[in-house]
Amino acid sequence: MLNDDQVMIQEAAQRFAYDKLRPYAGLWDETKHFPVEVMREAAGLGFAAIYTGEEHGGSGLSRLDGVIIFEQLSRGCIATAAFLSIHNMCTWMIDSFGSSDLRAQWVPKLATMETIASYCLTEPGSGSDAASMKTRAVRDGDSFVLNGSKQFISGAGVSDLYVVMARLDDGISTFLVVKDTPGLSFGANEKKMGWNAQPTRQVTFDNLCIPADNLLGTPGDGFKYAMKGLDGGRLNVAACSLGGAQDALDRALAYAGERSQFGKHLNAFQATQFKLADMETELSASRTLLYEAAAKLDAKTPDATRWCAMAKRFVTDTCSKIANDALQIHGGYGYLHDYGVERIVRDLRVHQILEGTNEIMRVIIARDMLK
Amino acid sequence: MLNDDQVMIQEAAQRFAYDKLRPYAGLWDETKHFPVEVMREAAGLGFAAIYTGEEHGGSGLSRLDGVIIFEQLSRGCIATAAFLSIHNMCTWMIDSFGSSDLRAQWVPKLATMETIASYCLTEPGSGSDAASMKTRAVRDGDSFVLNGSKQFISGAGVSDLYVVMARLDDGISTFLVVKDTPGLSFGANEKKMGWNAQPTRQVTFDNLCIPADNLLGTPGDGFKYAMKGLDGGRLNVAACSLGGAQDALDRALAYAGERSQFGKHLNAFQATQFKLADMETELSASRTLLYEAAAKLDAKTPDATRWCAMAKRFVTDTCSKIANDALQIHGGYGYLHDYGVERIVRDLRVHQILEGTNEIMRVIIARDMLK
Amino acid sequence: MLNDDQVMIQEAAQRFAYDKLRPYAGLWDETKHFPVEVMREAAGLGFAAIYTGEEHGGSGLSRLDGVIIFEQLSRGCIATAAFLSIHNMCTWMIDSFGSSDLRAQWVPKLATMETIASYCLTEPGSGSDAASMKTRAVRDGDSFVLNGSKQFISGAGVSDLYVVMARLDDGISTFLVVKDTPGLSFGANEKKMGWNAQPTRQVTFDNLCIPADNLLGTPGDGFKYAMKGLDGGRLNVAACSLGGAQDALDRALAYAGERSQFGKHLNAFQATQFKLADMETELSASRTLLYEAAAKLDAKTPDATRWCAMAKRFVTDTCSKIANDALQIHGGYGYLHDYGVERIVRDLRVHQILEGTNEIMRVIIARDMLK
Amino acid sequence: MLNDDQVMIQEAAQRFAYDKLRPYAGLWDETKHFPVEVMREAAGLGFAAIYTGEEHGGSGLSRLDGVIIFEQLSRGCIATAAFLSIHNMCTWMIDSFGSSDLRAQWVPKLATMETIASYCLTEPGSGSDAASMKTRAVRDGDSFVLNGSKQFISGAGVSDLYVVMARLDDGISTFLVVKDTPGLSFGANEKKMGWNAQPTRQVTFDNLCIPADNLLGTPGDGFKYAMKGLDGGRLNVAACSLGGAQDALDRALAYAGERSQFGKHLNAFQATQFKLADMETELSASRTLLYEAAAKLDAKTPDATRWCAMAKRFVTDTCSKIANDALQIHGGYGYLHDYGVERIVRDLRVHQILEGTNEIMRVIIARDMLK
Repeated sequence: MLNDDQVMIQEAAQRFAYDKLRPYAGLWDETKHFPVEVMREAAGLGFAAIYTGEEHGGSGLSRLDGVIIFEQLSRGCIATAAFLSIHNMCTWMIDSFGSSDLRAQWVPKLATMETIASYCLTEPGSGSDAASMKTRAVRDGDSFVLNGSKQFISGAGVSDLYVVMARLDDGISTFLVVKDTPGLSFGANEKKMGWNAQPTRQVTFDNLCIPADNLLGTPGDGFKYAMKGLDGGRLNVAACSLGGAQDALDRALAYAGERSQFGKHLNAFQATQFKLADMETELSASRTLLYEAAAKLDAKTPDATRWCAMAKRFVTDTCSKIANDALQIHGGYGYLHDYGVERIVRDLRVHQILEGTNEIMRVIIARDMLK
Repeated sequence: MLNDDQVMIQEAAQRFAYDKLRPYAGLWDETKHFPVEVMREAAGLGFAAIYTGEEHGGSGLSRLDGVIIFEQLSRGCIATAAFLSIHNMCTWMIDSFGSSDLRAQWVPKLATMETIASYCLTEPGSGSDAASMKTRAVRDGDSFVLNGSKQFISGAGVSDLYVVMARLDDGISTFLVVKDTPGLSFGANEKKMGWNAQPTRQVTFDNLCIPADNLLGTPGDGFKYAMKGLDGGRLNVAACSLGGAQDALDRALAYAGERSQFGKHLNAFQATQFKLADMETELSASRTLLYEAAAKLDAKTPDATRWCAMAKRFVTDTCSKIANDALQIHGGYGYLHDYGVERIVRDLRVHQILEGTNEIMRVIIARDMLK
Repeated sequence: MLNDDQVMIQEAAQRFAYDKLRPYAGLWDETKHFPVEVMREAAGLGFAAIYTGEEHGGSGLSRLDGVIIFEQLSRGCIATAAFLSIHNMCTWMIDSFGSSDLRAQWVPKLATMETIASYCLTEPGSGSDAASMKTRAVRDGDSFVLNGSKQFISGAGVSDLYVVMARLDDGISTFLVVKDTPGLSFGANEKKMGWNAQPTRQVTFDNLCIPADNLLGTPGDGFKYAMKGLDGGRLNVAACSLGGAQDALDRALAYAGERSQFGKHLNAFQATQFKLADMETELSASRTLLYEAAAKLDAKTPDATRWCAMAKRFVTDTCSKIANDALQIHGGYGYLHDYGVERIVRDLRVHQILEGTNEIMRVIIARDMLK
Repeated sequence: MLNDDQVMIQEAAQRFAYDKLRPYAGLWDETKHFPVEVMREAAGLGFAAIYTGEEHGGSGLSRLDGVIIFEQLSRGCIATAAFLSIHNMCTWMIDSFGSSDLRAQWVPKLATMETIASYCLTEPGSGSDAASMKTRAVRDGDSFVLNGSKQFISGAGVSDLYVVMARLDDGISTFLVVKDTPGLSFGANEKKMGWNAQPTRQVTFDNLCIPADNLLGTPGDGFKYAMKGLDGGRLNVAACSLGGAQDALDRALAYAGERSQFGKHLNAFQATQFKLADMETELSASRTLLYEAAAKLDAKTPDATRWCAMAKRFVTDTCSKIANDALQIHGGYGYLHDYGVERIVRDLRVHQILEGTNEIMRVIIARDMLK
């Protein structure tokens, strides 16, 4: 059960979601609009640097607070909330592993979203498989020269700052790449099943030259940083699934109370009632698992990574099922864009895949169980 | 196991699907193109009047043949195959229940798709619930005057002929409405999750006047005709799910043989292998259940309606799951339009809803079990 | 995450389970032995009156503490833990709703299990359906005369005290019936799938006469008391499923690390790893949902009854699945009594049925959602 | 759909099941009685050598006929039907791969069950993994000397003839071992979850000496024979699951029509109706898949082994689920031995494990898909 502070945070996020996101989510999906200005408003509430320390303008909240916020934001627009999650992950990585200078330079602007950040790990030929990473950085005097490509980069083309994992002699390292650097180019905006309110592009580095200072933290520790970022990223994407599914259930519950069939409201049929009951139950199981995982990451327990993986696996799968059930309750109307449920189904689908597929989650969980 | 004739039919349908549909299905989805000309080519192979007698140009094939054909066509384009199923249902209803004159007038043109037909049963406030139907027909001398609206009408606005169930003094009756009749109007093309290669519109009758001859069969038997049409329609929509899922499995199998992760092809991982094995198994169970249901409808066994409902319920649910698994095997690429799997998932989704939702299928099955 | 006190309680319960229950659970199942003496040892640790106030010897712990204890005890012997749950429910009902005299008379002995109690609600023709209850009590001077039968009564024949719901003029009321009262008789010990370490019998009241003082609380409030008892009972039975599933997973994990196939340990196969990962994930989701429900009952939140029903439904279903998966991992050995897993499967099965079937849980959840 | 001959066979098997097996199945389970005399009566109907040629007394029926028979027999007693399946597998192996002399010597007596046969492949340390087999045969003049142990042997101790796979210099080979041969001993009857109407014991060969003539077929081909036997064995065990699930559904349907709750018959609740509908649907999908697999084995299609594996996997999993649902519909009574459903659940459970676990089925299916 949430304490008073958490309830306040939850209410603020929900209000924002209902006022600023939910009325427009359908339109943004249809028109592939990336609502940068609205996200900056969210930043104004502290939602761009949630679990980043206050020193440079972060909100200094916990992971659990973050989860509560992303859950509520997703009741408004999943794709927008999910992009904010990625931006938060970048902000946290820079604040956690960056030098004083880098932190002072970037965190304040990331916290207001004057600077928008993208996370660049996945490549066309590698996802969770570090050994296959092909993007390379080479030292060249006071600079690094990057070559390679990153795939499925959310925000690419719009974002101002790219947190790039690349292979250096010392091992995989993390670099900050600024938008207008020569040698940086972007592919076409991918046509996707959902997440249409954020652009997804390939990012290519062609002899791109960055100052040595833009190396984040210790050379060779980049994959470790990327994975640490993902622990939180997985909580957040699970939270986005949770909020999306909650919205879908809200809509199904409302619809079942209005729509009649055979002379009765849908919600008077036992099969509908049982389905609604199961949706609520599964949603509650998802929420309690997720909150506990966040509490563990906050407490830095040794099993926190396992719990983040378990939460991501369970919550994203379960919430996709809930959203799909909500669509079914709507009958033919569920298939129409105007009713909003099919968008939720499409948006949630990718959460079972990204930040490590749910198969990779099982690898992580099993490895931890067997060690 | 299929006999030689069935194999020949199967091969012809598959060839057509691979040559004329599969290369374009993605484009038609994206551009919401209704491929009328290509469907007329399909009609040239006998696919517009498959299980309609040969007297007026039908192909005189069995329901099982029909299922084999729709399965194969859906390996090319689900939405197009599914519209052909609806057209076939209309053709069969007119040929089965129409007067000699109506049959002679319409069946030959339906068989070539010179005339395209739409099936108009569902209304904004009623689906499988006959008692709630509000569209009314009133006798006025030698004419009937229709008022009311039909919802989710595939082909509406393009189709030339509308097979309309409406309430008459004698009970629900079936009427043929020709496209350019005054008083006939169409809503906007609905924005849908999938099935984008066919238009879906509301159809409205505003004091629409049709000649008395356009009453199909016996007044008051219209709901019975509609349901008889749906027995076959359910087989066909299940067949479309089967073909879509087969295409998705084909794509997943190919992808898992090409894509590498951690230095091995995806199909070398046991979890991938087990998933592929389950997909193949579930697909095979779907196919055998569906073929048996079709054989029962061909044999007019007393349990044929139950079997059509069972096949529709099981096959459409199972095949949506298979398609969704195929998407997951593709990882991030599965979420992209260009890989074709996400379209299959979107197209198949509506099969669990239309021609009677899968909940209505359970009502039908249980009623038959308990009687 | 548990606090230090909770961890201490957990460890005490686990130690007891491992020392006093787990080595004998198989034998008790096989010989249908009801381990009364061992349960009295458990009572010595405070496990017979866990969430009962300290005034008359209860342990004064919370519902959450109770859940933690039952979870651990079930890692030793599910059937014994489950009977302790029933006894605790009775103890709590008498302490909560009884007069000072009844409380002083019974609670101390119940807390030590000098007196063992059974809960008598279900009848041959009614479970959760109060309106169908046929057992009747009639006032006769200073006494009540009871007639009727109760079905599926755990502990019947051995228990010293029976908490009986019966229909009085005022409505359903709760009575205490002492073992040797004339007119009290017991059916044969039922042959059951599991739960063999506790007897289950019909209990019959034939003009059974009890003093008026043995009416518990207010006449007509008996069903309310029974339902309040069941809120906690549902948490506890879910906790018993959780502990049983944990034991099954422990055994599967151990077996998969020892057993070889095709030259590798079972746990080196990805399909085994993924199954283990899913079991751990589902177990964790079950645990977090259950603990939250217990916290809600402790806090007497308005949605506590819904949460108890959700926890009971989800946890008992999920944990039965986990146990069944553990059996499968054992291959042929899982089917043998000596390996202990098949007993867990059999014991857990009834948790999906009793204290209100999982279908009744859905009724409760949906009713609360729709009000 | 079955032809007239098949319907006749089906009716004969059902009649036998209802007259001779079903009334006693509960008792046999409880008392661990192996009904040898009743099985000889079944042999009198041709059920001990169903798909064995007529030359030496086999029934000369097809695999599909066999499946139909085992399905019906299992509606009476699963464990008995399943043992008959094993006996049939042995009979067929001897008739198919044995010399004229061996066939003439054994098949007639196997067909009448004057001789009862057991199949000995699995060992304590190896199931489907031929390479781990440790039982060895060594040539010694005109004899073979066998040493080793076989595990989970149905009928062991009672059977007269043991079809033993053992490692010879030439590779795994198949031997016939007669019951009273010195050096043959049996372990204790295993305590099992179900299948109590047939004994299961370890079989040990201690310098057991058999005449050279008792080698079946070609040395080194034993594993191939064992696998060919298992193709049919898998169909049969799936058929036994099908019949068991049909019986469970029959019982649930009857119970739901008699039992009342909240003033209505159980079958008037929509949730019960939907569950029954799903059970019937899944049963039908199981049946059609299984019959098709049997037809493929009859036709010796190249994919027959894959189909046998698919049918075994799908049917045994699905039918266990159906039986478990039937138990749930019975509420508390489902947990009692007297209602017969919990026995079906226990008996069916092992079908997901034996004749190759369902995990091994997935290995077989995937291997065939990927080759």
